[in-house]
Amino acid sequence: MVNNQVRAAVLIIGNEILSGRTQDKNIKFIAEHLFDCGVILVEVRIIEDIKSDIIRTVNELRNKYDYLFTTGGIGPTHDDLTTESVAEAFSLGVEVREEAVEAIKNQYKEAGVNFRSEALKMAMIPHGAELIRNSVSGAPGFRIDNVFVFAGVPHIMQNMFLGILDQIKTDNKFYTITLKVHIGESSIAEICRKLQAQVDDVQIGSYPFIEDKKWATELVIRGNNQKHVTSITSKLRNYLEEQGIVYSCKN
Amino acid sequence: MVNNQVRAAVLIIGNEILSGRTQDKNIKFIAEHLFDCGVILVEVRIIEDIKSDIIRTVNELRNKYDYLFTTGGIGPTHDDLTTESVAEAFSLGVEVREEAVEAIKNQYKEAGVNFRSEALKMAMIPHGAELIRNSVSGAPGFRIDNVFVFAGVPHIMQNMFLGILDQIKTDNKFYTITLKVHIGESSIAEICRKLQAQVDDVQIGSYPFIEDKKWATELVIRGNNQKHVTSITSKLRNYLEEQGIVYSCKN
Repeated sequence: MVNNQVRAAVLIIGNEILSGRTQDKNIKFIAEHLFDCGVILVEVRIIEDIKSDIIRTVNELRNKYDYLFTTGGIGPTHDDLTTESVAEAFSLGVEVREEAVEAIKNQYKEAGVNFRSEALKMAMIPHGAELIRNSVSGAPGFRIDNVFVFAGVPHIMQNMFLGILDQIKTDNKFYTITLKVHIGESSIAEICRKLQAQVDDVQIGSYPFIEDKKWATELVIRGNNQKHVTSITSKLRNYLEEQGIVYSCKN
Repeated sequence: MVNNQVRAAVLIIGNEILSGRTQDKNIKFIAEHLFDCGVILVEVRIIEDIKSDIIRTVNELRNKYDYLFTTGGIGPTHDDLTTESVAEAFSLGVEVREEAVEAIKNQYKEAGVNFRSEALKMAMIPHGAELIRNSVSGAPGFRIDNVFVFAGVPHIMQNMFLGILDQIKTDNKFYTITLKVHIGESSIAEICRKLQAQVDDVQIGSYPFIEDKKWATELVIRGNNQKHVTSITSKLRNYLEEQGIVYSCKN
């Protein structure tokens, strides 16, 4: 739909989201930042900590998209299987990386905690992978080819993600205009359908919600051709004004 | 791992989550309720409003799992493609369902809004599907075979989901005990690994977090054999007490 699309997937690894124990906070963070970089997040998957599933899914998604970002499963316990699974997906061995050992030991020292050998599991890194710095708790993530492997704890994931942002910059930029329309979406379905049929590089999204017990709709007009986004938005605004439908422009 | 497992997937359909515009609230709600029903949520996917992707993913997941729950894409606008896609996945046509028309018209009447023909799109239902009642806004979801199709707006989805809960009851029940341990997970990695190796119908999950600037861990012991869950938990508690590690039992 948009030229020169850079497309990405996110893979959340961990039973805690699937059991409903934990509210996911990683998807929105990554999605927002990818959007700002001009990268389209096409798909998200959440799977269990099962090695064969992780290997299969990593291979499927890394071959399908330009980037794959994984979160979770790189801690020191028996249910942390991401590192060995991603290594196996790339047919790579894992090895203790000295730089990672140092980072972990430094973090233990700073926290005033005795270093434990179990923590060394977090220094096992696939052969040849680039480390992703973790300035919150030391133990790094890593990148192999187009796959970025992050921790699952949100503020550590965010720290790692912000550290690799410059590696995923694109020439694309999305332009988005949001119209908040004080009417249910049935009333604007026809005009949206007509306008959408006129363009294939602008996406019109229609998102209903209830405010003060009345239906309202957010119309999100998005694309990487600013002129086309503006033009479609003008046509929509003209229609709303002709019909006397109350709306506001959010950006 | 657990006998007589009933396994499910959730498919979230909609660009608004993938663009980072909206924080998903549906996954946790469905996950928690499935867990309470003894159904294991094995996988979640979030995909765009693209018909071919919806058809392919619905077919993959409905064949792989006992249940598939979809949310989103059943509204009246051009970007609502779920109904026709699910119908096509089952090689079914869609038709205007009178019962759905009545439900939508009643809701318009109650809301004091003039009925619009565009709303009839929401009464288009795959041939032979069972309706899922929506007492929030009228327009129903539907069930075909093992696939339940819900709206994406959280409180409408919740209303629909609670209405079909009795259709997915199982004889399974999960027993879960959570220990909150005031130490980083490296310190308990070895004992957890050893205990996990002793049982295959109990799952020990280890989830680190930071509290008052110190690492802590939640250990979640889960299974459908209450005796085994209790036994593994006792062994863990004995270890923690022997080591003088502070912990609390959450349930």
